[in-house]
This record gives sequence, C-alpha cells and structure tokens, in this order.
Amino acid sequence: MMNFSSENHDGTHLRILKALINSNNGFAASYGKDEYTIEAIELFREVFGTKELEPFFCFNGTGANNFALSSISEKHNAILCSESSHLYTAESTAPETFTGCRLYPVKTVNGKILIEDFLLKVNTKNDVHLPPAAILTITQPTEYGTIYDLNELNIISNHCKENNILLHVDGARLFNALAAMNCSLADFVKICRPDALSLGGTKSGLMFGEAVVFFNNGRFRNLNYNHKRSMQLASKNRFIAAQFIELLKDGLWKEIATHTNNLAKYFERELAKTGKAETAYPVETNMVFIKMGQTPFDQLKTSVRFYRWDIQREEVRFAFSFSNTIGDINSFFKEYKKVMNHD
Amino acid sequence: MMNFSSENHDGTHLRILKALINSNNGFAASYGKDEYTIEAIELFREVFGTKELEPFFCFNGTGANNFALSSISEKHNAILCSESSHLYTAESTAPETFTGCRLYPVKTVNGKILIEDFLLKVNTKNDVHLPPAAILTITQPTEYGTIYDLNELNIISNHCKENNILLHVDGARLFNALAAMNCSLADFVKICRPDALSLGGTKSGLMFGEAVVFFNNGRFRNLNYNHKRSMQLASKNRFIAAQFIELLKDGLWKEIATHTNNLAKYFERELAKTGKAETAYPVETNMVFIKMGQTPFDQLKTSVRFYRWDIQREEVRFAFSFSNTIGDINSFFKEYKKVMNHD
Amino acid sequence: MMNFSSENHDGTHLRILKALINSNNGFAASYGKDEYTIEAIELFREVFGTKELEPFFCFNGTGANNFALSSISEKHNAILCSESSHLYTAESTAPETFTGCRLYPVKTVNGKILIEDFLLKVNTKNDVHLPPAAILTITQPTEYGTIYDLNELNIISNHCKENNILLHVDGARLFNALAAMNCSLADFVKICRPDALSLGGTKSGLMFGEAVVFFNNGRFRNLNYNHKRSMQLASKNRFIAAQFIELLKDGLWKEIATHTNNLAKYFERELAKTGKAETAYPVETNMVFIKMGQTPFDQLKTSVRFYRWDIQREEVRFAFSFSNTIGDINSFFKEYKKVMNHD
Amino acid sequence: MMNFSSENHDGTHLRILKALINSNNGFAASYGKDEYTIEAIELFREVFGTKELEPFFCFNGTGANNFALSSISEKHNAILCSESSHLYTAESTAPETFTGCRLYPVKTVNGKILIEDFLLKVNTKNDVHLPPAAILTITQPTEYGTIYDLNELNIISNHCKENNILLHVDGARLFNALAAMNCSLADFVKICRPDALSLGGTKSGLMFGEAVVFFNNGRFRNLNYNHKRSMQLASKNRFIAAQFIELLKDGLWKEIATHTNNLAKYFERELAKTGKAETAYPVETNMVFIKMGQTPFDQLKTSVRFYRWDIQREEVRFAFSFSNTIGDINSFFKEYKKVMNHD
Repeated sequence: MMNFSSENHDGTHLRILKALINSNNGFAASYGKDEYTIEAIELFREVFGTKELEPFFCFNGTGANNFALSSISEKHNAILCSESSHLYTAESTAPETFTGCRLYPVKTVNGKILIEDFLLKVNTKNDVHLPPAAILTITQPTEYGTIYDLNELNIISNHCKENNILLHVDGARLFNALAAMNCSLADFVKICRPDALSLGGTKSGLMFGEAVVFFNNGRFRNLNYNHKRSMQLASKNRFIAAQFIELLKDGLWKEIATHTNNLAKYFERELAKTGKAETAYPVETNMVFIKMGQTPFDQLKTSVRFYRWDIQREEVRFAFSFSNTIGDINSFFKEYKKVMNHD
Repeated sequence: MMNFSSENHDGTHLRILKALINSNNGFAASYGKDEYTIEAIELFREVFGTKELEPFFCFNGTGANNFALSSISEKHNAILCSESSHLYTAESTAPETFTGCRLYPVKTVNGKILIEDFLLKVNTKNDVHLPPAAILTITQPTEYGTIYDLNELNIISNHCKENNILLHVDGARLFNALAAMNCSLADFVKICRPDALSLGGTKSGLMFGEAVVFFNNGRFRNLNYNHKRSMQLASKNRFIAAQFIELLKDGLWKEIATHTNNLAKYFERELAKTGKAETAYPVETNMVFIKMGQTPFDQLKTSVRFYRWDIQREEVRFAFSFSNTIGDINSFFKEYKKVMNHD
Repeated sequence: MMNFSSENHDGTHLRILKALINSNNGFAASYGKDEYTIEAIELFREVFGTKELEPFFCFNGTGANNFALSSISEKHNAILCSESSHLYTAESTAPETFTGCRLYPVKTVNGKILIEDFLLKVNTKNDVHLPPAAILTITQPTEYGTIYDLNELNIISNHCKENNILLHVDGARLFNALAAMNCSLADFVKICRPDALSLGGTKSGLMFGEAVVFFNNGRFRNLNYNHKRSMQLASKNRFIAAQFIELLKDGLWKEIATHTNNLAKYFERELAKTGKAETAYPVETNMVFIKMGQTPFDQLKTSVRFYRWDIQREEVRFAFSFSNTIGDINSFFKEYKKVMNHD
Repeated sequence: MMNFSSENHDGTHLRILKALINSNNGFAASYGKDEYTIEAIELFREVFGTKELEPFFCFNGTGANNFALSSISEKHNAILCSESSHLYTAESTAPETFTGCRLYPVKTVNGKILIEDFLLKVNTKNDVHLPPAAILTITQPTEYGTIYDLNELNIISNHCKENNILLHVDGARLFNALAAMNCSLADFVKICRPDALSLGGTKSGLMFGEAVVFFNNGRFRNLNYNHKRSMQLASKNRFIAAQFIELLKDGLWKEIATHTNNLAKYFERELAKTGKAETAYPVETNMVFIKMGQTPFDQLKTSVRFYRWDIQREEVRFAFSFSNTIGDINSFFKEYKKVMNHD
C-alpha cells in the first residue's frame, strides 16, 4: 500500500543499514567512548565549519529537544515556542518534567512564528512573579513544511541577541530546509546563530538517532551530566554515530532531502493539474497539506495512507520519505481522480 | 584486543542483526502501531504465560527503569533500592527528575538486599513528614552477578505484599539469571510476582532496546501517556520489537545467556587453577569479580580490556558477552600468568 | 498616603489580630493537631454545608493553588487556566515544578474564560503525544474583579463533568464574589461543584494564611502527604486556623467584602461624575480598572498609591481593602480632578 | 499541662507578638518592598558583619531549606546530608521536587556527620553516571541538640573548599548553638564560611517565619526568581521582617536561647540526681534525650507532653522552649520520680 503518512513509517535507508552492519564489527567502547563517536564528533565540527561546538547523540526527537532545552534553561524561565511546535503538541509533559519551565505558545502564520507576538511575549519587566522568557525555540522547517529563509533567520537571531534570549532550533527535518535553500550546515549556523540545535536523523533515513549540537563558548556547563540525566546516553552509541557518519560524510543527507523535496513539488504540480484542491500552506520542503473532507479521505484510505492532520480544519498531510517515488505519486493521483470524480 | 569490559562493548548478535535487516521491509506504522510491535506484545503474553500484562518498549535501561518506577509511584513516596543498584549508582538524577521520589539505599550482601535492612526501612508510621516507602526495586541478577534464588524471591515478594510495597525488578541481565536457575520467564513471574519488570535487551545482544512489563490488573493507569512522557516511545518502534521477537521466539535468549554464564564458570575454574586470586562474589551468572591491584591491572590492560569496578576495594570485573569465547579466556590466562609470575 | 494598590498592602484586620493574640495562650499541638485547627475544620464543614470535604491550611496563594492542583492532577496532564490567571502570570514556574503539568492558557473576556475556547482546548483525542486537559481552573472573582454568575458557574461545571475535567476554583478573593452575589459558601459550592477550592485569607484581612478545600469522595488520595510535600504544613498551624475561625464564624468575611465592594461601587460613581474616564471592566467586586496615561499617573503617585496594571493597554487598578474608607476615595478624587484639569 | 514536646508547640514570644502588633500600622508595600523588610535586611548585614550577603524571608523550615538548596544546586547533583537531618527525615519529597537532586545520607555520631563517611561520599570520579556530590548540608545544632564546635566547623569548611563542595547550614535552632558557644552570628559565619544558611525563627519564638542567607559574591544568580518559584515570597512580608527585627536587634535571640539551654542543663542535673536514667546524647543546647520504655512514657503522658523520638531505640526527647520554666521541670521530676518508683 502507498504510504505518505510520515518519514517515521519508512524504514532505514539502505546506505544507513549498510553502515550499521559494517559498524557491527566486534567490541567497541560503550557510552560514546568508541571510535565511531569520536569520528562523528570530528565530522560534525567539519560540516558545521567550527570547532566551537559540542555534539551529543540522542535516541529520539523528544529526547533531543528536552535534553537541549533543559541544558540551556533555568528552572524559573519561560520558553517561547510556536503554538504548532512538536515541543508544544507532541512531547507530552516531558518539557515540564525536564526543564521545569513554562512554555509560552507564540502565534504563527504558515507555521512560522509571528515576530510581533514573539516580541510581545519577551517579558522585559524585571518581575519575579511572571516566568521570564529566556529561550526561543523555532522549528526549521516548520511542522507545515514551510521554511524561515536566511533573512528571516537573521532577523529572529538579532531579536534574540538584543533581548538576551537564547535560540534553539528544532531541526528534526533540517536537512530538507537546507536542501531547499541550497545551504550548508555551516552557512545555516553562521546566519542563524543558534545556541543549541536538535538535528534529526530518524526522519532522514536513520533506524533511530538524533543529535544535539551546542554552540557553546563555555556558557553551558555539565552538558555531559545532563545528557546522562536526560536518559539519552546510549550504551552502544557507536550505532547512532555510525549512522550519522554515513548521513553526513558525503552528502547522503542532501541526496535524500532533495529527493523528498522534489516529490512534494511534483505532488503539488500534479494536484494543480487536477484542479480539485489547493495546498493549505506553501510547499517548501517535503510535505504537502491540503483540505480534504471525511468522505474522500475514507475512500482513499483503502489504497493509500496519509495523515489526518487537523480534523477541525479538514487538513490532511502528505509527507514524503526516501522510499517514496514519482511512481507512487502517479498511482495516488489515479485513485485521487477516481474519488474526486465520484464527488 | 580481548574485551571483557561489559556486554555494552559488544555489538549486535548476528541473529538479531538479521532480524533488523528483515524488518526493514518498506513502510510500517509508527509509534508502536506496527505489526512487529503487535506480534512482540503477543509473544510477551505467551512467554510470560499470562494475558494480565502490559509490555512497553524503551530505548535503554535508564529509560526503562525510570519509566517503570514513575508509572507505579506517587510523588511523595520513597523507593527502596539496593545501595549498589544501577538505579542508585548509574542513572544520574533521572530517578528524582522522573519520579520525584526519594531513593532509600538498602544494605546488601553479595549485591543482594539484606532483608532486615529492607524491613527496617519500610516505614510503618503514618507520618507525613518522612517519605513512606512504597516500592522495592531489586536487581536480578545483581550488579555483582549474584542471583536471588526462587525461595528468596518468594520471601521478598511476601514481605512486599504484607507491607503494601510494590515490587519492581531491574532485569537488565534477567536472562542470565533465568538460564542459571533453569527457569522460564513464566515461572519467574509466578514466584516473584513483580508489579513491574525492566527486561534488558541491550546486554543480551540487541543493538538497542529494553522492555518494561507491568503486571497490572488495572491498578496502574495512563501507562501509555507516561511512556510518551518518559521519552521512551520510539517512532520506528518496529526495530525494537523485531529484535525482541528474535530474542524471545525460539530461545535465543537462553542460548546466549547459557553461553555467557558458562564462560564465567570456565573463567572461575581457570582462575582457581592459577592459585593467584579469589573471586570477590559467588560466580552465579556471567560476571566474575576479583581483587587486583593497580600494577597487574596496568600490565594487563595492554592486551585485554576489563573494568576497574571499585578502586577503593581493588575490585575488577570480567563480564562475558555473546562474542566472547573459551579461546579468549585461555588467551587471557596466558597473559595473566605472565603478569602474576612477574609479581 | 492613600493606598489602593492591593489588599496585600493592607495590614491585619483588628478582629483577626485580636484572634491571633487570644490564640497565643501557651502550648498547642504542632502541625495542625491543635484544637484551633480541629475547630476550624468543623467550621469549614458547617459553612460549606457538607461533611464531604477536606480542608487544609496553607501559607500563601501560590502555595494553595499549587498544593491543590498537584493533588488532583497526574504528571502527563494539561491544566486549563485563563490567560490572565494568577497561576499563569504570577506564580513563577511553581506550577510546572509541583504538578509537572502543561498549562494551557484559555482566552478571556473581562477576565472570564471564553467557553468556546475552553471547549476547543479540551482535547478529546486519545493521543499520547499531546498532554490531555484534565483540569480547568477558574478564578472567582477574576483578576479584573468580574464575577461568573451562578448560571455561568453551573454551565462551566456541566461542561467539566461532561468532558471528565476536574474543576478548581482560585478563590483568593472569593468572599468578594459571594458578597456581591449575596451567596453563601454552601450555595456557591452546591452550584459550582468544584473538586478543589483555594480559599483566600490574606486578601480578606488575615496576616497570612489561605485554605484549600477538597470536595473529595475519596478520589484524591494522600492529600496530607502532598500537603507536607508542598511545604504548606505550618508548624504552628493554630495561628492560621484561629484567623480563619474569626473570619468565618460570624460573618466577618461578609462585612469586609461588602465594605470593599461598596468602596469600588462608590469609586465608580465618583469617577462617572468626573466625566474623565471610563472603567475598563464591569465593576462587580472590590476593584476598578481605568485607562490612565503615564503623565497623570506620575502626578497622582505623589499622593496616592495604585497599581499600573498593564503598561501597554495603559490600564491602572484601584483595589479596595478593609482599611480603605469613603473619605480616602473623596480625597483621591480631589487630587484626581486637579490632575485631570491640568491635562 | 506541662509541655516539652517541641518549640513548635509553644506560641509567640510576647516581645515578638508586640512587634507584630506594632507593625500592623496601616499600609505597607507588599512582597518585601516594605520598610520593615528593608530594615531587616540592613540588620542582617549588621549582625552578620558583612555586606556580602543576600537574605530572604521564608514561611517555614522546609521552605527555607528547599529554597536554599535549590538555589545553589544543579539538577544532576547529589546533596550530602546527615542521615538524621530534617531534610532527610522530615521534609517529605520536597527536596527531590525542588532541587531534582539525589540526597546521599552521611553517617553520624551524636547527630554530627562522620568526616570519614562524608569524604567517602564526596565522589571524586568524573563519572556522568553517578550524581556527583556538590553540596554538604549540616545542621547546627543537630537534631540531637549537639553542636559542632568552631574547630569542627572550620575543619568541615576546609574539606568543603578543598573538594569544591558548597556548604549549607540548617540553622533551625542556630541561636541555641551560638548561645551555647557564646559566639556571634558574625563570628560563626567567619569560621564556618557557609554558602547558604537557613536561619530559624519559628523555634525561637516567632509566630512563623524563617530566613535564608546567601553568602554569595555573585555566584548564585536569580535568587529572587527562585524565591518566588519556591513559593516563599510572602505578600505581607512586613510581618516576617518585623519579627526578625525584634529577635535580632537587641539580643532577644540570645536571651531566649540562653534560657532554653539553661533549662536543658537544669533538666540534665535533676535527671542525674534521680539516678534513674542517662542522657542518650551530650546535652549541649536546649534538648535532652533519654531512654524510656513504653510503660513510664504512658504513665507520664497524662501530666506532661514530650516526644517519643525513636520507638526502636526507646528514645524520648525533651525540648525546651521560651515558655518553659524551672518550675515546669521541678513539677516534671515530681511526676517522674513517682512513676519511676512504681517501676
């Protein structure tokens, strides 16, 4: 059955799987003292173009975000996040448990924070009663597949520096944004200047594994202790490191992201040809959202899986993963046209 | 180089790796709604011999223990644990973060809790000031490789029921204890009657992955919500489930555990022949602890890896994993005798 | 200097002070085992008209709210609160620390929650990723001095029961609402049917002290343990209990609340006569909010204290406490008219 | 009835009560912006002989200790405390809730920590798995009324500095220790060099109220935010401040402490005369512990209240408060001799 539900429904990319098999070569030190981890950390320094960073590996996205945010926050702080962020909508109360902080939702347009609302919620009063905003976390690309362009990132980063707000980027799908902008990791962090970045692996073809990168300069202390406290220190960490090496070392990330971004663009064009629906948000990376009622959704779901994103707004989501093909999309539109003509 | 450091230094067992490769067959539902997970849950019911259980999959041992304990405790409780337990010595402050509870260390002999000290710390006063003990967690086998026999488990379980104390078992290496006692999972839980069990996979040949099994009867609510809150809900959970299916379905666990237990017994016999050292604890599963000073340790470490367990007590640990062989041990003793004759 | 800043700027009502002096008569059991506390609990049962309640005493409002909410919530829950509530704006991150829950802000009109937004945020999906709303907390009267009438309370309570949402009332100024509605505590809880109520003392003339009342029926367990854990168990609790006895036993609460409500009404009328300003919210209890620019505020503050409530909206607040008099208000308007004619 | 249960059973000292009445003179700024608080802070600087301190007021001892410790710890730390400390035995799980840290109990002799056990538990390994000890909290005088003399304090403080351990003193009864050592607050902190001190008021005659003093030099940030987060910021703080001013300003603390210390010494002498019992610990401040079986305890309790401290060890405690007199003790021994001759 065709499946456009989520990159999480897809398996492990074959090159990643091969890297896993190759790294399964006898004994290796545990808890990240192994040579794969050491190599991966060096590779991070190379691809990010700076030695001033500290990378850590994590099991999943929720673990990565909460490890990152608990490492740069204090317990009386508030964290500003978009109202549609994974952190706010899909990580249970792990943020409260781990950081002890308040989450303030910031209004969004097309998934991107409204600067005015962000600035409104940056509490400038020196008032002990109200949790002061100390961190902004943005998602790049957003949960709607839209991207902050480099100019927007620069503006947001400037506002953060001016207001003494730390910047975290949830980059669960960052590679898709970079491919879309034709931008390297190094250029991205040069312009965006995040203090911490959650870098997704699972949605880019890994079996499991994410990374958190701190751009530190010594401000954040005891990161390794907090990594363990956050339950993200893998005993056989070589298996996360080996996957990231494969993903990063000669552009596999870009190959996958370009492929899935292209699928979304292709889908958008095919959709336009049908004249049956409009996309709900600009298609900028590997996801397409459209309005669809319950009836066509029910008819289509016998042959294709995709996600009812928002029942009230009648939005459905098509997310493209590395295993998807142009052929899948063509097959989908055959079904789609049948269902739509029935309408 | 020979390596007896820890099962965590070993890789992925080849049968497990093959199961991973086989499960990488296209799309599968995420977050444990896939068929591998459904099959694994059924298999758990079968091997545990009861339908009255709820299994959940986790990333690592710290995640498993803290998910388990946070699910059965209340925030004003104390949790009794052995002073040498992983929970008390190797999980940072994740227990405090997740459960909010006090940990009371219980004295041990050979890694096993002293019943008298356990009973002393079961606070029977109805006193709101002192956190009341509500849970006992024991490790089977213990961190020293020793095991509670079935009679001891029955006694501990009875004390728990009489004192209204919930029982959790940290079974990171449970398969080694079961193989040593020639006992099935079903018989183990029939006698031990735990309320929750952390069942280790990583130390038994998995690439990653642990399980938590609740023996519930409806007392523990919202386990699935707490699983997510504990950051243990894997997006591509099929890859944990497929490994557990392979481990459990036709006795791979027993094959591995018997092999590693036998290695420890062989090591103990070879050691006895040298007349150079005595084991620090009874050798009952897959680990051997001996006294060793700094000098021989330093000499040996050029050719073999093992763990300085306790510097003050001059104890070193040899832990045997599935990749170790009788040949490894023979090679070790060649080096060992050389070093010891130098003394 | 005239002071309309807050009831917290006022001292201790003379009858309350006298009760404190009288209760200082030698030894009394500590931690609420004393006769004053026992008498106060009986009195609570009497004035609330039910035996099905458990009252606890607390030090301050933040302590009361967080003890109440942490006692009726689970760690994966969300708590719905008005965006202007004390809980959301003036208790730092104590809610996250104590409850571990997410706070979802609900939109308000005149400080009262918009039912539609409340219902929108009652998450009905059985989705482990999103913290499910489990509790609604409303403030009666609101932070703007407005009140939910009995019909509105009944509707909100019905929505809560239908959606399986527990209801907490922050009644830091509840007596003012009751006096305004000419309603007894017993009638209030009969209609509102809260699961827990924070009942304010400090703002009604106490030196210090609040109460939390649980309407329980056995659902909430270990309240006394959580009371201690919440750091609200006073060693010399008789001094809180004796104050509440005085406040409740023969209508002192009503006398004070009627007086301060009347002052607000008088202020509103005098303001209307000046033709210089309008109230920002309906004046329903003991507070008046008006628009006022920086210049008149600065001119007035040499002779009278009141609170700049919201700088962006240019709202100022006049809160009336038991020590304020009609004469104070007359004096204020003399100054006010002078300043306003200068404009 | 005679009462030697606890200073918490006693009321408010008449001079303190008078100070409360005098401070009830109209309006005063809330949340510690009032003139009493400002005066009290100045007075703290004077009596401690340094300007390098930041005092905060709290409601009770549990609040004070947890505010103090949560302000100087990080979430991955362990806090070393004596196994008999109030923190470990009488504050529920507030320490875990607030600090997120592990408590490591340190063995004691006569209530005072064993230096060897303290040093053993100072974890010097750079190991992320085990929570590293970061703070030592000692109680002066101890829960058994014994005191660390100035030489012992100096040694403990030196060990802390050498091991990079912060030092907190729980001084719930510090005035008794100071009176016994004839030592000023200034001299005490000069020798002991604590980083934070909980200074008890309630047990020294206050109606309610404790203080926390940080000896800071800028290391501890955002103390005022954490004070609010810890729910210890009193709205009508003048009433705590006014009590501390009275206690500190012209030696009332010393007068009370000397009186209650003398009562304990008198009790010890009278006890010795009876030849019927021995004290369980050296009598160094205002408490006397003796062995007493259930039968005499039950016979005595019809005429006198005192505390069964430890049922297993059959220890009872006599704590002397400001209201107790030599006459009370004489009356007690009349009863005591009757009961003992019955034996």
